Amino acid sequence: MKTNPRHTYVHGYSRREARRLLDQAQTLTELLHHDTLYPAGSRVLEAGCGIGAQTVTLAEKSPGALITSIDLSEPSLVQAEARVKASGGRNVTFLQADIYSLPFGDGTFDHIFVCFVLEHLHDPVPALTCLRRVLKPGGTITVIEGDHGSAYFSPDSEAARKAISCLITLQQEEGGNALIGRELYPLLSRAGFQDVTVSPRMVYVDASHPELVEGFTKQTFTAMVEGVRDEALRQGLVSRAEWDRGIRDLYRTCEPDGTFCYTFFKGTGVK
Amino acid sequence: MKTNPRHTYVHGYSRREARRLLDQAQTLTELLHHDTLYPAGSRVLEAGCGIGAQTVTLAEKSPGALITSIDLSEPSLVQAEARVKASGGRNVTFLQADIYSLPFGDGTFDHIFVCFVLEHLHDPVPALTCLRRVLKPGGTITVIEGDHGSAYFSPDSEAARKAISCLITLQQEEGGNALIGRELYPLLSRAGFQDVTVSPRMVYVDASHPELVEGFTKQTFTAMVEGVRDEALRQGLVSRAEWDRGIRDLYRTCEPDGTFCYTFFKGTGVK
Repeated sequence: MKTNPRHTYVHGYSRREARRLLDQAQTLTELLHHDTLYPAGSRVLEAGCGIGAQTVTLAEKSPGALITSIDLSEPSLVQAEARVKASGGRNVTFLQADIYSLPFGDGTFDHIFVCFVLEHLHDPVPALTCLRRVLKPGGTITVIEGDHGSAYFSPDSEAARKAISCLITLQQEEGGNALIGRELYPLLSRAGFQDVTVSPRMVYVDASHPELVEGFTKQTFTAMVEGVRDEALRQGLVSRAEWDRGIRDLYRTCEPDGTFCYTFFKGTGVK
Repeated sequence: MKTNPRHTYVHGYSRREARRLLDQAQTLTELLHHDTLYPAGSRVLEAGCGIGAQTVTLAEKSPGALITSIDLSEPSLVQAEARVKASGGRNVTFLQADIYSLPFGDGTFDHIFVCFVLEHLHDPVPALTCLRRVLKPGGTITVIEGDHGSAYFSPDSEAARKAISCLITLQQEEGGNALIGRELYPLLSRAGFQDVTVSPRMVYVDASHPELVEGFTKQTFTAMVEGVRDEALRQGLVSRAEWDRGIRDLYRTCEPDGTFCYTFFKGTGVK
């Protein structure tokens, strides 16, 4: 039983996890963010900035926008602020705040940006409704989420699929949803957004893309799965032998004859 | 026990199946074929043309190319020829032939095109090696295949996943591989092709794409799964009730709050 299940974070806050988030941000920047550009002078809310992995990109790509980045975790905000400062970003204000009770007036922002956050929330629709309140009429929301059920690979492996399902189960136990990418369209629609458009961003990895083999299959995806090892074993979701085989099989897809597929979803809507 | 397992075709040869293949070809033409254009005068082999669903597109997009389309099934060839003629194509020669023993000399063709064929073969690498023989040095092969393990949807449904797995199992029993899309890179590499490049073509369907809800989720994918109902029940792969629930749940993804994802893979290589 969690004391505050709404606010747990399945991946934890370790240093390795911080490294993973940064690897992920770098490898995927173009794929996920190339078409997110906010005009100079526009007010942008980044809800759930974490350690600032995406904030750096946001600030770089829209240097004239006035970005407010919020997160629940004070230590994460400290890291995010240092990271953005180090990268030369000067257009971000950081603030500790709860996505379910935002300390902003109605219609404060021109645009809202939410990346890898909804998957960890108990109630994504109420959260989106809260965000919609602080958006100006005609303003846009952009949401990016993964979907762990979109992962498949060659050689196929039941053990690897089982290891991934441990992560999905643990995220669900904490009230999150690791399969949320495919649901962005109905979620944004239910929260009242108009002109909802969802565009999948598939990461396809084979030996002709060594940077993705390293940066995505190994450092991002498999590292993320490995992060829940202890909890998965503690709960008996999988045997130690099966877990080890699953992880070995995920690394096996990084061999010259292996392939790996994963899809992120980027959704936009208008108030 | 099959008398000729190398040459069975899991989807059968019914009229409904012919309709499904045509719906599929129309909905997906741009996604799959927009970047396949052969120069005037080039000699192109289409291996496994079936009823000509893709041949019509090939002939239209490369009207100056000299296309030879082969298939094992004489009745399919008759249909393919009539279909291409009706669409105005005048640049295709049809020939009954076996992909494993091609009646052409070495280096006969400038380009080879193979679409939805390898998934039904026992031995895709030897087939690709045979095809490579009749290709000129420097010539290209283009292969397009689906991957039924790439299908996922919302609302998620165990019964729907089980119905899909029946199709995968039956195709495997006949010596095919319904998960072949993710393997194009290693298969083409093993057959000796150079500069192998694989590009996934994801079909993402939600209510903002009504033509895909109808043309892809219902008429193409779900119709294909429904096509193996009798055999799946006969073999006891699933109970009647579970099958019906699975199919109902696939149609459920076509409601306004549903989504559906599927990925085709297009691979190219050079001799």
